[in-house]
Amino acid sequence: MTNTRHNPAAIAAPARNLYAHAVAVPAGSRHLYIAGQVGTRPDGTIAPDLEGQVEQIMANIRAILADAGMGFGDIVKINAYCLAAEDIVTYAGIRNRHFAGSPPATTAVVVSGLADPGWLVEVDAVAAKAGA
Amino acid sequence: MTNTRHNPAAIAAPARNLYAHAVAVPAGSRHLYIAGQVGTRPDGTIAPDLEGQVEQIMANIRAILADAGMGFGDIVKINAYCLAAEDIVTYAGIRNRHFAGSPPATTAVVVSGLADPGWLVEVDAVAAKAGA
Amino acid sequence: MTNTRHNPAAIAAPARNLYAHAVAVPAGSRHLYIAGQVGTRPDGTIAPDLEGQVEQIMANIRAILADAGMGFGDIVKINAYCLAAEDIVTYAGIRNRHFAGSPPATTAVVVSGLADPGWLVEVDAVAAKAGA
Repeated sequence: MTNTRHNPAAIAAPARNLYAHAVAVPAGSRHLYIAGQVGTRPDGTIAPDLEGQVEQIMANIRAILADAGMGFGDIVKINAYCLAAEDIVTYAGIRNRHFAGSPPATTAVVVSGLADPGWLVEVDAVAAKAGA
Repeated sequence: MTNTRHNPAAIAAPARNLYAHAVAVPAGSRHLYIAGQVGTRPDGTIAPDLEGQVEQIMANIRAILADAGMGFGDIVKINAYCLAAEDIVTYAGIRNRHFAGSPPATTAVVVSGLADPGWLVEVDAVAAKAGA
Repeated sequence: MTNTRHNPAAIAAPARNLYAHAVAVPAGSRHLYIAGQVGTRPDGTIAPDLEGQVEQIMANIRAILADAGMGFGDIVKINAYCLAAEDIVTYAGIRNRHFAGSPPATTAVVVSGLADPGWLVEVDAVAAKAGA
Protein backbone atom coordinates (compact mmCIF):
# COMPACT_ATOMS: atom_id res chain seq x y z
CA MET A 1 0.00 0.00 0.00
CA THR A 2 1.11 3.54 -0.63
CA ASN A 3 0.48 6.92 0.91
CA THR A 4 -2.84 8.42 -0.17
CA ARG A 5 -3.74 12.07 -0.60
CA HIS A 6 -7.06 13.43 0.66
CA ASN A 7 -8.56 16.59 -0.85
CA PRO A 8 -12.29 16.36 -0.16
CA ALA A 9 -14.57 18.25 -2.55
CA ALA A 10 -16.42 19.83 0.37
CA ILE A 11 -13.59 22.24 1.11
CA ALA A 12 -11.66 24.70 -1.04
CA ALA A 13 -9.02 22.87 -3.09
CA PRO A 14 -5.35 23.42 -2.31
CA ALA A 15 -4.02 26.32 -4.36
CA ARG A 16 -2.91 24.92 -7.73
CA ASN A 17 -2.72 21.47 -6.12
CA LEU A 18 0.72 22.39 -4.81
CA TYR A 19 0.04 20.72 -1.51
CA ALA A 20 -2.38 18.12 -0.19
CA HIS A 21 -4.96 18.79 2.53
CA ALA A 22 -3.87 15.51 4.08
CA VAL A 23 -1.74 12.47 3.37
CA ALA A 24 -2.64 9.06 4.82
CA VAL A 25 0.14 6.61 5.68
CA PRO A 26 -0.98 2.96 5.71
CA ALA A 27 -0.20 0.60 8.58
CA GLY A 28 2.97 -1.34 7.95
CA SER A 29 4.96 1.73 6.97
CA ARG A 30 8.16 3.09 8.38
CA HIS A 31 8.32 6.77 9.31
CA LEU A 32 11.25 9.14 8.96
CA TYR A 33 11.40 12.21 11.21
CA ILE A 34 13.65 14.85 9.65
CA ALA A 35 15.18 17.53 11.90
CA GLY A 36 14.81 21.20 11.11
CA GLN A 37 17.14 21.79 8.19
CA VAL A 38 18.85 25.11 7.55
CA GLY A 39 20.96 26.48 4.72
CA THR A 40 24.26 25.07 5.98
CA ARG A 41 26.46 23.84 3.16
CA PRO A 42 28.65 20.72 3.44
CA ASP A 43 31.65 22.94 4.33
CA GLY A 44 29.76 24.43 7.26
CA THR A 45 29.17 27.86 5.74
CA ILE A 46 25.66 29.23 5.34
CA ALA A 47 24.17 30.12 1.98
CA PRO A 48 23.95 33.94 1.98
CA ASP A 49 20.41 34.55 0.75
CA LEU A 50 16.97 33.02 1.15
CA GLU A 51 16.91 31.32 -2.25
CA GLY A 52 20.30 29.76 -1.61
CA GLN A 53 19.27 28.60 1.83
CA VAL A 54 16.08 26.98 0.56
CA GLU A 55 17.98 25.25 -2.25
CA GLN A 56 20.52 23.96 0.28
CA ILE A 57 17.75 22.79 2.59
CA MET A 58 16.14 20.84 -0.24
CA ALA A 59 19.54 19.32 -1.12
CA ASN A 60 20.00 18.33 2.54
CA ILE A 61 16.55 16.78 2.67
CA ARG A 62 17.24 14.91 -0.57
CA ALA A 63 20.44 13.45 0.93
CA ILE A 64 18.68 12.48 4.15
CA LEU A 65 15.83 10.80 2.26
CA ALA A 66 18.29 8.92 0.04
CA ASP A 67 20.19 7.73 3.10
CA ALA A 68 16.91 6.22 4.32
CA GLY A 69 15.97 4.73 0.96
CA MET A 70 13.31 7.36 0.33
CA GLY A 71 12.63 10.27 -2.00
CA PHE A 72 10.60 13.48 -2.02
CA GLY A 73 7.50 11.52 -3.03
CA ASP A 74 7.59 9.85 0.37
CA ILE A 75 7.37 13.12 2.32
CA VAL A 76 3.95 13.31 3.90
CA LYS A 77 4.29 16.55 5.88
CA ILE A 78 6.68 19.48 5.54
CA ASN A 79 6.81 22.53 7.80
CA ALA A 80 8.55 25.84 7.19
CA TYR A 81 9.51 28.47 9.73
CA CYS A 82 10.24 31.70 7.85
CA LEU A 83 11.09 35.21 9.04
CA ALA A 84 8.63 37.11 6.82
CA ALA A 85 5.36 36.29 5.06
CA GLU A 86 6.81 37.08 1.63
CA ASP A 87 9.58 34.57 2.31
CA ILE A 88 6.95 31.83 2.43
CA VAL A 89 6.22 32.52 -1.26
CA THR A 90 9.89 32.18 -2.17
CA TYR A 91 10.24 29.02 -0.11
CA ALA A 92 7.11 27.44 -1.55
CA GLY A 93 8.16 28.16 -5.11
CA ILE A 94 11.42 26.27 -4.67
CA ARG A 95 9.83 23.54 -2.57
CA ASN A 96 7.09 22.86 -5.09
CA ARG A 97 9.56 21.99 -7.83
CA HIS A 98 10.54 18.91 -5.80
CA PHE A 99 7.05 17.48 -5.38
CA ALA A 100 5.52 17.26 -8.85
CA GLY A 101 2.64 14.80 -8.72
CA SER A 102 2.98 13.87 -5.06
CA PRO A 103 2.51 17.00 -2.98
CA PRO A 104 2.81 16.71 0.80
CA ALA A 105 0.67 18.22 3.51
CA THR A 106 2.26 21.54 4.43
CA THR A 107 2.39 24.13 7.19
CA ALA A 108 4.26 27.44 6.95
CA VAL A 109 4.45 30.15 9.57
CA VAL A 110 6.39 33.32 10.29
CA VAL A 111 8.47 33.14 13.45
CA SER A 112 10.40 35.86 15.30
CA GLY A 113 13.76 34.19 14.97
CA LEU A 114 15.80 31.03 14.61
CA ALA A 115 18.75 29.73 16.62
CA ASP A 116 21.41 31.42 14.44
CA PRO A 117 21.01 35.01 13.20
CA GLY A 118 22.30 33.93 9.77
CA TRP A 119 19.49 31.46 9.22
CA LEU A 120 16.53 32.81 7.25
CA VAL A 121 14.38 29.70 7.21
CA GLU A 122 14.19 26.30 8.88
CA VAL A 123 12.30 23.35 7.39
CA ASP A 124 11.43 20.01 8.97
CA ALA A 125 9.46 17.09 7.58
CA VAL A 126 8.03 13.63 8.10
CA ALA A 127 8.32 10.96 5.41
CA ALA A 128 6.81 7.49 5.33
CA LYS A 129 7.13 4.47 3.09
CA ALA A 130 5.50 1.05 3.05
CA GLY A 131 7.71 -1.76 4.30
CA ALA A 132 9.77 -2.51 7.37
CA MET B 1 -6.21 -1.75 19.70
CA THR B 2 -7.05 1.89 20.08
CA ASN B 3 -5.18 5.08 20.84
CA THR B 4 -4.44 5.50 24.54
CA ARG B 5 -4.15 8.70 26.53
CA HIS B 6 -1.37 9.19 29.08
CA ASN B 7 -1.76 11.65 31.95
CA PRO B 8 0.61 10.44 34.67
CA ALA B 9 -0.27 11.43 38.22
CA ALA B 10 3.29 12.65 38.83
CA ILE B 11 2.73 15.81 36.80
CA ALA B 12 0.11 18.52 36.91
CA ALA B 13 -3.09 17.35 35.19
CA PRO B 14 -4.12 18.97 31.90
CA ALA B 15 -6.36 21.95 32.62
CA ARG B 16 -9.94 20.65 32.90
CA ASN B 17 -8.87 17.52 31.00
CA LEU B 18 -9.31 19.48 27.77
CA TYR B 19 -6.19 17.95 26.29
CA ALA B 20 -4.05 14.90 26.93
CA HIS B 21 -0.40 15.04 27.96
CA ALA B 22 0.24 12.33 25.39
CA VAL B 23 -1.60 9.97 23.09
CA ALA B 24 -0.14 6.58 22.17
CA VAL B 25 -0.87 5.07 18.76
CA PRO B 26 -0.53 1.27 18.65
CA ALA B 27 1.43 -0.53 15.95
CA GLY B 28 -0.77 -1.53 13.05
CA SER B 29 -2.38 1.89 12.74
CA ARG B 30 -2.58 4.21 9.78
CA HIS B 31 -1.60 7.84 10.26
CA LEU B 32 -3.16 10.90 8.67
CA TYR B 33 -1.07 14.05 8.34
CA ILE B 34 -3.33 17.08 7.98
CA ALA B 35 -1.94 20.25 6.39
CA GLY B 36 -2.21 23.61 8.11
CA GLN B 37 -5.85 24.58 7.74
CA VAL B 38 -7.01 28.18 7.56
CA GLY B 39 -10.40 29.86 7.54
CA THR B 40 -10.98 29.54 3.80
CA ARG B 41 -14.58 28.74 2.97
CA PRO B 42 -15.59 26.40 0.13
CA ASP B 43 -16.10 29.43 -2.17
CA GLY B 44 -12.52 30.56 -1.57
CA THR B 45 -13.36 33.55 0.62
CA ILE B 46 -11.93 33.86 4.12
CA ALA B 47 -14.11 34.01 7.22
CA PRO B 48 -13.74 37.60 8.49
CA ASP B 49 -13.06 37.09 12.18
CA LEU B 50 -11.20 34.69 14.44
CA GLU B 51 -14.25 32.77 15.62
CA GLY B 52 -15.41 32.27 12.04
CA GLN B 53 -11.97 31.16 10.93
CA VAL B 54 -11.66 28.61 13.73
CA GLU B 55 -15.16 27.27 13.00
CA GLN B 56 -14.25 26.96 9.31
CA ILE B 57 -10.96 25.25 10.19
CA MET B 58 -12.79 22.70 12.32
CA ALA B 59 -15.29 22.13 9.48
CA ASN B 60 -12.38 21.61 7.07
CA ILE B 61 -10.72 19.16 9.43
CA ARG B 62 -14.00 17.30 9.87
CA ALA B 63 -14.32 16.94 6.08
CA ILE B 64 -10.71 15.77 5.74
CA LEU B 65 -11.12 13.23 8.53
CA ALA B 66 -14.36 11.93 7.00
CA ASP B 67 -12.66 11.57 3.62
CA ALA B 68 -10.12 9.30 5.33
CA GLY B 69 -12.71 7.35 7.30
CA MET B 70 -11.81 9.05 10.56
CA GLY B 71 -13.34 11.46 13.07
CA PHE B 72 -12.19 13.96 15.68
CA GLY B 73 -11.71 11.13 18.19
CA ASP B 74 -8.89 9.84 16.01
CA ILE B 75 -6.86 13.07 16.21
CA VAL B 76 -3.82 12.41 18.36
CA LYS B 77 -2.05 15.77 18.05
CA ILE B 78 -3.30 19.22 17.05
CA ASN B 79 -1.18 22.35 16.72
CA ALA B 80 -2.34 25.95 16.50
CA TYR B 81 -0.41 28.96 15.26
CA CYS B 82 -2.19 32.09 16.47
CA LEU B 83 -1.32 35.78 16.19
CA ALA B 84 -1.95 36.72 19.84
CA ALA B 85 -1.99 34.88 23.16
CA GLU B 86 -5.62 35.78 23.83
CA ASP B 87 -6.53 34.21 20.47
CA ILE B 88 -5.35 30.85 21.82
CA VAL B 89 -8.17 31.00 24.39
CA THR B 90 -10.75 31.63 21.67
CA TYR B 91 -9.32 28.87 19.49
CA ALA B 92 -9.18 26.37 22.34
CA GLY B 93 -12.76 27.07 23.37
CA ILE B 94 -14.06 26.19 19.90
CA ARG B 95 -11.63 23.32 19.45
CA ASN B 96 -12.57 21.69 22.74
CA ARG B 97 -16.21 21.33 21.73
CA HIS B 98 -15.09 18.82 19.08
CA PHE B 99 -13.15 16.50 21.37
CA ALA B 100 -15.48 15.58 24.23
CA GLY B 101 -14.14 12.45 25.89
CA SER B 102 -11.18 11.93 23.59
CA PRO B 103 -8.92 14.98 23.88
CA PRO B 104 -5.77 15.08 21.73
CA ALA B 105 -2.27 16.16 22.66
CA THR B 106 -2.02 19.86 21.84
CA THR B 107 0.49 22.59 21.15
CA ALA B 108 -0.40 26.26 20.64
CA VAL B 109 2.00 29.12 20.02
CA VAL B 110 1.89 32.76 18.96
CA VAL B 111 3.64 33.42 15.66
CA SER B 112 4.52 36.72 13.96
CA GLY B 113 2.52 36.04 10.84
CA LEU B 114 1.02 33.57 8.41
CA ALA B 115 1.27 33.31 4.64
CA ASP B 116 -1.79 35.50 3.95
CA PRO B 117 -2.45 38.71 5.90
CA GLY B 118 -6.13 37.76 6.15
CA TRP B 119 -5.43 34.58 8.05
CA LEU B 120 -5.66 34.88 11.84
CA VAL B 121 -4.87 31.29 12.75
CA GLU B 122 -3.52 28.12 11.14
CA VAL B 123 -4.12 24.64 12.59
CA ASP B 124 -2.54 21.34 11.60
CA ALA B 125 -2.99 17.88 13.06
CA VAL B 126 -2.08 14.21 13.03
CA ALA B 127 -4.74 11.52 13.32
CA ALA B 128 -4.32 7.77 13.62
CA LYS B 129 -6.64 4.79 13.56
CA ALA B 130 -6.11 1.06 13.97
CA GLY B 131 -6.25 -0.90 10.72
CA ALA B 132 -4.62 -0.76 7.32
CA MET C 1 13.87 -3.55 14.94
CA THR C 2 14.87 -0.27 16.52
CA ASN C 3 14.83 3.37 15.52
CA THR C 4 17.73 4.29 13.24
CA ARG C 5 19.56 7.59 12.97
CA HIS C 6 20.48 9.05 9.56
CA ASN C 7 23.34 11.52 9.23
CA PRO C 8 24.51 11.26 5.62
CA ALA C 9 28.10 12.24 4.93
CA ALA C 10 27.00 14.47 2.03
CA ILE C 11 25.71 17.16 4.34
CA ALA C 12 27.26 19.02 7.27
CA ALA C 13 27.19 16.88 10.41
CA PRO C 14 24.92 17.86 13.30
CA ALA C 15 26.81 20.13 15.69
CA ARG C 16 28.70 17.91 18.14
CA ASN C 17 26.29 15.07 17.26
CA LEU C 18 23.82 16.55 19.74
CA TYR C 19 20.93 15.85 17.41
CA ALA C 20 20.25 13.57 14.45
CA HIS C 21 19.43 14.82 10.96
CA ALA C 22 16.71 12.21 10.89
CA VAL C 23 15.41 9.23 12.86
CA ALA C 24 13.68 6.34 11.11
CA VAL C 25 10.95 4.41 12.91
CA PRO C 26 10.44 0.86 11.62
CA ALA C 27 7.02 -0.54 10.74
CA GLY C 28 5.47 -2.35 13.67
CA SER C 29 6.20 0.44 16.14
CA ARG C 30 3.86 2.35 18.37
CA HIS C 31 4.04 6.14 18.36
CA LEU C 32 3.59 8.49 21.30
CA TYR C 33 2.52 12.07 20.63
CA ILE C 34 3.48 14.31 23.53
CA ALA C 35 1.63 17.60 24.02
CA GLY C 36 3.49 20.87 24.38
CA GLN C 37 4.97 20.77 27.86
CA VAL C 38 5.61 23.87 29.94
CA GLY C 39 7.32 24.51 33.25
CA THR C 40 4.31 23.74 35.43
CA ARG C 41 5.25 21.90 38.59
CA PRO C 42 3.10 19.15 40.12
CA ASP C 43 1.54 21.71 42.50
CA GLY C 44 0.42 23.85 39.56
CA THR C 45 2.93 26.65 40.05
CA ILE C 46 5.33 27.63 37.30
CA ALA C 47 9.09 27.42 37.65
CA PRO C 48 10.26 31.05 37.77
CA ASP C 49 13.15 31.06 35.29
CA LEU C 50 14.07 29.48 32.00
CA GLU C 51 16.44 26.87 33.42
CA GLY C 52 13.83 25.80 35.95
CA GLN C 53 11.14 25.60 33.30
CA VAL C 54 13.27 23.47 30.99
CA GLU C 55 14.22 21.15 33.86
CA GLN C 56 10.54 20.80 34.78
CA ILE C 57 9.62 20.16 31.15
CA MET C 58 12.19 17.38 30.92
CA ALA C 59 10.86 15.90 34.19
CA ASN C 60 7.33 16.03 32.78
CA ILE C 61 8.43 14.35 29.56
CA ARG C 62 10.27 11.68 31.55
CA ALA C 63 7.08 10.94 33.53
CA ILE C 64 4.98 10.80 30.37
CA LEU C 65 7.45 8.48 28.64
CA ALA C 66 7.59 6.21 31.70
CA ASP C 67 3.79 6.06 31.80
CA ALA C 68 3.92 4.76 28.22
CA GLY C 69 6.75 2.32 28.88
CA MET C 70 9.29 4.47 27.06
CA GLY C 71 12.37 6.53 27.81
CA PHE C 72 14.27 9.47 26.31
CA GLY C 73 16.04 7.10 23.93
CA ASP C 74 12.70 6.48 22.23
CA ILE C 75 12.11 10.15 21.39
CA VAL C 76 12.49 10.56 17.65
CA LYS C 77 11.58 14.25 17.29
CA ILE C 78 11.54 17.10 19.78
CA ASN C 79 10.45 20.67 19.08
CA ALA C 80 11.05 23.77 21.16
CA TYR C 81 9.22 27.09 21.00
CA CYS C 82 11.34 29.68 22.79
CA LEU C 83 10.92 33.43 23.26
CA ALA C 84 14.49 34.46 22.32
CA ALA C 85 17.29 32.96 20.24
CA GLU C 86 19.66 32.84 23.20
CA ASP C 87 17.07 30.81 25.10
CA ILE C 88 17.46 28.05 22.52
CA VAL C 89 21.07 27.61 23.69
CA THR C 90 19.98 27.26 27.31
CA TYR C 91 17.21 24.85 26.37
CA ALA C 92 19.46 22.73 24.18
CA GLY C 93 22.11 22.47 26.85
CA ILE C 94 19.67 21.00 29.34
CA ARG C 95 17.90 18.88 26.73
CA ASN C 96 21.13 17.33 25.47
CA ARG C 97 21.98 15.88 28.87
CA HIS C 98 18.97 13.57 28.50
CA PHE C 99 19.88 12.09 25.13
CA ALA C 100 23.43 10.80 25.42
CA GLY C 101 24.01 8.29 22.64
CA SER C 102 20.56 8.46 21.12
CA PRO C 103 19.94 12.03 19.97
CA PRO C 104 16.55 12.84 18.42
CA ALA C 105 15.75 14.94 15.38
CA THR C 106 15.16 18.48 16.62
CA THR C 107 13.53 21.74 15.64
CA ALA C 108 13.75 24.96 17.66
CA VAL C 109 12.26 28.31 16.79
CA VAL C 110 11.61 31.67 18.41
CA VAL C 111 7.92 32.54 18.70
CA SER C 112 6.23 35.79 19.73
CA GLY C 113 4.42 34.32 22.68
CA LEU C 114 2.86 31.35 24.39
CA ALA C 115 -0.59 30.86 25.91
CA ASP C 116 0.44 32.03 29.41
CA PRO C 117 2.66 35.08 29.95
CA GLY C 118 4.58 33.15 32.61
CA TRP C 119 5.70 30.45 30.21
CA LEU C 120 9.14 30.99 28.69
CA VAL C 121 9.33 27.86 26.56
CA GLU C 122 7.06 25.06 25.32
CA VAL C 123 8.40 21.71 24.12
CA ASP C 124 6.55 18.91 22.35
CA ALA C 125 7.83 15.59 21.04
CA VAL C 126 7.12 12.33 19.26
CA ALA C 127 8.47 9.03 20.57
CA ALA C 128 8.28 5.60 19.00
CA LYS C 129 9.15 2.08 20.11
CA ALA C 130 9.00 -1.29 18.42
CA GLY C 131 6.11 -3.48 19.51
CA ALA C 132 2.36 -3.16 19.81
